[in-house]
Amino acid sequence: MTQNTVEAPAKTPVTLLGLGAMGTALARTWLAAGHPLTVWNRTAARAEALAAEGAKVAESVATAVAANQLVVVVLLDDASVDEALGGVDLAGKDVVNLITSTPAQARARAEWARERGARYLDGGIMAVPPMIGVPESGGYVFYSGSRELFDEHRETLAVPTGATYVGGDAGFAALHDVALLSAMSGMFAGITHAFALIRKESIDPAAFAALLSDWLVAMAPAAHQTAEHLKSGDYTTGVASNLAMQSAGNQTLLDTAEGQDISSELLVPYYELMRRALDSAAEAADEEGTARMVDLLRR
Amino acid sequence: MTQNTVEAPAKTPVTLLGLGAMGTALARTWLAAGHPLTVWNRTAARAEALAAEGAKVAESVATAVAANQLVVVVLLDDASVDEALGGVDLAGKDVVNLITSTPAQARARAEWARERGARYLDGGIMAVPPMIGVPESGGYVFYSGSRELFDEHRETLAVPTGATYVGGDAGFAALHDVALLSAMSGMFAGITHAFALIRKESIDPAAFAALLSDWLVAMAPAAHQTAEHLKSGDYTTGVASNLAMQSAGNQTLLDTAEGQDISSELLVPYYELMRRALDSAAEAADEEGTARMVDLLRR
Ligand SMILES: NC(=O)c1ccc[n+]([C@@H]2O[C@H](COP(=O)([O-])OP(=O)(O)OC[C@H]3O[C@@H](n4cnc5c(N)ncnc54)[C@H](OP(=O)(O)O)[C@@H]3O)[C@@H](O)[C@H]2O)c1
Ligand SMILES: NC(=O)c1ccc[n+]([C@@H]2O[C@H](COP(=O)([O-])OP(=O)(O)OC[C@H]3O[C@@H](n4cnc5c(N)ncnc54)[C@H](OP(=O)(O)O)[C@@H]3O)[C@@H](O)[C@H]2O)c1
Repeated sequence: MTQNTVEAPAKTPVTLLGLGAMGTALARTWLAAGHPLTVWNRTAARAEALAAEGAKVAESVATAVAANQLVVVVLLDDASVDEALGGVDLAGKDVVNLITSTPAQARARAEWARERGARYLDGGIMAVPPMIGVPESGGYVFYSGSRELFDEHRETLAVPTGATYVGGDAGFAALHDVALLSAMSGMFAGITHAFALIRKESIDPAAFAALLSDWLVAMAPAAHQTAEHLKSGDYTTGVASNLAMQSAGNQTLLDTAEGQDISSELLVPYYELMRRALDSAAEAADEEGTARMVDLLRR
Repeated sequence: MTQNTVEAPAKTPVTLLGLGAMGTALARTWLAAGHPLTVWNRTAARAEALAAEGAKVAESVATAVAANQLVVVVLLDDASVDEALGGVDLAGKDVVNLITSTPAQARARAEWARERGARYLDGGIMAVPPMIGVPESGGYVFYSGSRELFDEHRETLAVPTGATYVGGDAGFAALHDVALLSAMSGMFAGITHAFALIRKESIDPAAFAALLSDWLVAMAPAAHQTAEHLKSGDYTTGVASNLAMQSAGNQTLLDTAEGQDISSELLVPYYELMRRALDSAAEAADEEGTARMVDLLRR
């Protein structure tokens, strides 16, 4: 039976700390892909199902870390890293920290790992657990920090979902992660307001959602023009609907909210920022697109 | 030269009132498609270029209206309709009003047209002038009001850009228009915040814009789940990231804004609404998605 089999290259063994919703989803993909997997979770019971699927369950976090060079951390938050790994020997380890954190926390954590003799890669997961192991979900992880570590373990890291490296600064993964989530918050706020407007009308929410989603998909690439403007410092080139027109149009949006008995609390801060941009000393402000508002947010 | 030509069906003649940026863009598409076109603009000079391209320029708004059954109005705002058409005979006309207005204005305008013996269709243009006549731009017009008028003139109305009928209530086109623009405002607010976060870092805005745009495109379909929840009244089914988790995550977003010296004014109202949803009497609120916030916006 064996004479025709080709020896598959050995899969990199992985240690995974933290078996919450996200850790468990990641774990399953490495097991399914044939990577030897050692897991540890503070509450041991959560490891049982994975043990049955082939994971080695470590008795302690120190044993788990000692087992493999590549150590992936998916605990709750930055504070839980100190609690779990405070006294553990990390010398020579490759630590990949996928915990959601601020850029400042990620940079401090990179320094913490360096002091302990470990290479460090920070990650920001742009996916929810059901998207893990589903390439067509479009999920991925932002990575930043040690480029060496990323390049050496790229294949392994790409098993659960996409892997996008965004720079040597360990804080950049978190910064990209938070920036995209912040933008999504704005979009969700807008979606919430839109549904509120039609809530009491004889309009099918599902048909409306399709129109709304398609519209946002069509308009999201407006971010490219803002980027070009911020790069060039010329905030007017190619603007089809300038700030003055947008600001005038906002009154119709506010009047409609009023007419539908809806609070405009989610829209007002952006309109006020637009007014500040128009009132700014800049002569050409009303011919501009939205880029000036980016600068006005700086403290 | 003529013996082999097939008689093309006559194209519906169109009267167009208002040759601003949008009116001019619409006019060109009807001329290009071979529709006889009569135009009128308050400031006559703006009609000159179109006259050279084949449009008939009417001396007065009354002459323009008298010329054809189908009258398309693209003036500045609702008030300008009274100024321009106040004393004009509209009996037997098909009035298509593409001026941006509130649902209340559109309903009142439909009544105004009815009293004058005209059929009425209201439109909300989901495009900027450079998208007109460019089918792949994805632009379109929401129409509501007389279904008969829409069906009879559907082909003519679809010449400049897409045509989507959303109901017999003349206010529905404006309501859909405003709802989509409001949601876009939210998305643009989020994009503005995201760029502010990275503004002083060594991150290429163009590369960042690509990641940002792709992420928003991937997340916009979340509107479908909100619609399903609003329809069913069950706000928890299929929620991968519930309100409690999202609310906890918001602290990282606010801390990151603080760390990057950015005002969080564009994000805060949504987070406060989320807290109100979590604090609401509803037992399951923290297991829910975002649908409850829609109801909380109602006055
Ligand atoms: N779920 C998502 O949608 C999602 C998306 C993107 C990013 N993330 C990030 O991924 C990370 C994990 O999320 P999750 O959804 O898996 O969270 P979760 O389901 O709440 O699990 C939290 C995990 O952290 C462990 N933990 C908490 N405090 C600890 C401590 N002091 N010492 C040791 N272990 C501790 C828990 O262990 P016990 O079992 O012992 O409590 C559990 O394994 C978070 O940073 C989250 O922000 C999650
Ligand atoms: N441009 C866009 O991106 C866009 C997108 C969607 C919807 N719309 C809507 O389309 C409509 C037209 O927009 P636009 O961009 O073409 O505006 P515009 O370039 O500012 O043109 C305004 C037009 O309205 C006329 N007008 C203004 N007040 C008038 C009055 N009292 N009596 C008669 N005519 C009057 C102007 O005539 P004069 O030449 O004599 O001043 C001009 O033809 C607006 O309702 C706008 O909200 C525009």
